[in-house]
Amino acid sequence: MTYVVPRGFEMAGVACGIKKSGKDDLTLIHIPSGGVAAGVYTTNLVHAAPVTIDRARTPSANFRALVVNSGNANACTGERGMRDALEMCRLAGEAVGATAEQTLVMSTGIIGVFLPMEKIASGIAAATARLASDEAAFIAAAKGIMTTDAFMKVVSKQVEVAGSTVTLSGMCKGAGMIGPQMATMLAVMMTDANITPADARALLQRVADQSFNCISVEGHMSTNDTLLLLASGAASSAPLAGDDLLAFEKALLDACIELATQIPDDGEGATHLIEIEVRGTKSPKEARTIAQTIANSALVKTAITGGDPNWGRIVSAAGYAGVPFDPAGVDLTINGHPVYAQGSPLPFDPKTVSTSMKENRKTHLLLTLREGEESIRFWTSDLTVDYVRFNADYTT
Amino acid sequence: MTYVVPRGFEMAGVACGIKKSGKDDLTLIHIPSGGVAAGVYTTNLVHAAPVTIDRARTPSANFRALVVNSGNANACTGERGMRDALEMCRLAGEAVGATAEQTLVMSTGIIGVFLPMEKIASGIAAATARLASDEAAFIAAAKGIMTTDAFMKVVSKQVEVAGSTVTLSGMCKGAGMIGPQMATMLAVMMTDANITPADARALLQRVADQSFNCISVEGHMSTNDTLLLLASGAASSAPLAGDDLLAFEKALLDACIELATQIPDDGEGATHLIEIEVRGTKSPKEARTIAQTIANSALVKTAITGGDPNWGRIVSAAGYAGVPFDPAGVDLTINGHPVYAQGSPLPFDPKTVSTSMKENRKTHLLLTLREGEESIRFWTSDLTVDYVRFNADYTT
Repeated sequence: MTYVVPRGFEMAGVACGIKKSGKDDLTLIHIPSGGVAAGVYTTNLVHAAPVTIDRARTPSANFRALVVNSGNANACTGERGMRDALEMCRLAGEAVGATAEQTLVMSTGIIGVFLPMEKIASGIAAATARLASDEAAFIAAAKGIMTTDAFMKVVSKQVEVAGSTVTLSGMCKGAGMIGPQMATMLAVMMTDANITPADARALLQRVADQSFNCISVEGHMSTNDTLLLLASGAASSAPLAGDDLLAFEKALLDACIELATQIPDDGEGATHLIEIEVRGTKSPKEARTIAQTIANSALVKTAITGGDPNWGRIVSAAGYAGVPFDPAGVDLTINGHPVYAQGSPLPFDPKTVSTSMKENRKTHLLLTLREGEESIRFWTSDLTVDYVRFNADYTT
Repeated sequence: MTYVVPRGFEMAGVACGIKKSGKDDLTLIHIPSGGVAAGVYTTNLVHAAPVTIDRARTPSANFRALVVNSGNANACTGERGMRDALEMCRLAGEAVGATAEQTLVMSTGIIGVFLPMEKIASGIAAATARLASDEAAFIAAAKGIMTTDAFMKVVSKQVEVAGSTVTLSGMCKGAGMIGPQMATMLAVMMTDANITPADARALLQRVADQSFNCISVEGHMSTNDTLLLLASGAASSAPLAGDDLLAFEKALLDACIELATQIPDDGEGATHLIEIEVRGTKSPKEARTIAQTIANSALVKTAITGGDPNWGRIVSAAGYAGVPFDPAGVDLTINGHPVYAQGSPLPFDPKTVSTSMKENRKTHLLLTLREGEESIRFWTSDLTVDYVRFNADYTT
């Protein structure tokens, strides 16, 4: 697979010493001729300074540079944290000849610790000197935002829209959601499509609701979660509209699902990616609520860890999601095997279902209600001994 | 400690072969001269047949007998499950010379499997022959409702109310909430106080909201959760009223907290009982929502398992609970050590706090907001490697 940097972008990733390991910890993404930026952010009341800044500056018609550091989330750091985040923006803007207001900032890592601003400043200078538009620059940028991720999470797609080739390339990070050495989901989608700030904002929210808002590792919403869409507009002279805009939104959704599902697949200690499909609800929100409740059940997660087709845990989690439905209308399949229908247990061979769970990285649960026509897909990790070991490690 | 059976009660616990282990699995509790019964039940849409029956029959002014089996929850068993539960009531009523409508039933254990009714029938007969009012009968009854509990959970208290000695004795079971070999929280509080059915129902709900509704192991609400209050009325000729009724309610609350907190203390694999106190909210419900969100965070639980004073996980869990509050007004102490005040980190010695967490079975978290005067206490277990091992075991 090759990664293509969309036209109009340059980027770099460097190590500036925030991480004790010496790994890359600062990424700079630049649109020299300026572009559009939109964002979707954590709804946690306790959110980090970069979230406050980016939320105020997006959607933007005049975006120039994004600076991201890993290793320190700049969260729960009060007024000094806000000053530091603003200073990161000022330094990044100055480095590329833009104003501070044309920049955005993201941070991920340990929380409650102040940023090492001298290291950040030298990192921005080093990244500026390395800005490039080739595959190596893309990979370096993707590595610069990683924390405890076991693997780099990227996507790169090209689609024909309105007679032009539009590139969609993105990167994200996330494993556990919060912690001394990890904190938070960050994602950046980059494209050369020409879209207006208003369209960017609206379609990004819709896409997020079916991709990044449909994943969880342990259900802990972080202080820094951010998804940005950056668009250089280089692919066409006029902004996309009508069916072309719809085609772009569909391509963006495909790319975001491909990117987002890499996060639970890399959940700390995860041995299974669990896809929970809920059908037959009155609204998409009801479907999401049921799917999320199942996804957050430690009993469901551990059953899948053990390859146990324990449908009672799944059905009962649906029952306490707070969504009204007729229990006598519920069907469930596990990896395509029907185990429960119309509210009653079905005879099935547990060994066959168990083997299919144990031999596949992905476990698919399909819960069908008889209340309506809406549906959702939701993805999560299983819960393993290694997850507990990792998160119980004393770190101070 | 000695356990006192309240006046007017007799009980027994026997093994009738539902559990393969041969341990006690059937309990019968009888008030020969009749009494009052009230209940608080799971709000899970997917609930078991015994819950449907008891909910319809309480509050009752004419209660005679309660039959409980462990080893099989009779949940997700459809119409046959309902017939079986009604038959359990009929058999228990017949055994003690009462009508089926004067009886209540509870079941706990594996779900989705039909009850072995012949074993149940022989168990009811055996228990009837052993009915007694001594401490040995109380202990046998408490053991008959256990599933994967590591220890028997009981309480026994005496208080002076309205010039008489009132006895409050209770038993409960619970560890994980649902599973092939466990399922569900069951609790029975017995008293010789004289209370009306309407008072019993009202005060039991208030007491449950501050005791059994303030505990969780992994946040999975079960299909069978039931709390019953049984009152023989033998302690006084007239029903309690006014200040006497308030004094009884307070004693019942104390007893229920003592009983309920034994459940997370015995959470599967638990090494800590976590007490989460939330103060300064506008309503008790808001305090409970925040406390419950913290309690259900796998990251908070694993931090405490590891003795890690990771306040960021606690504060950020409060932030996504869905309750509006000013993050700049938040204080947090861990085992009495202030670690966060007015929305900013405090300097503290992490080793001191960690040692206090590691050396005590109980970890106390106090989160104080500045929104109002309400508060709650909530109890949960930590999350350990043994919890995952236990619940990931393949059982089919």
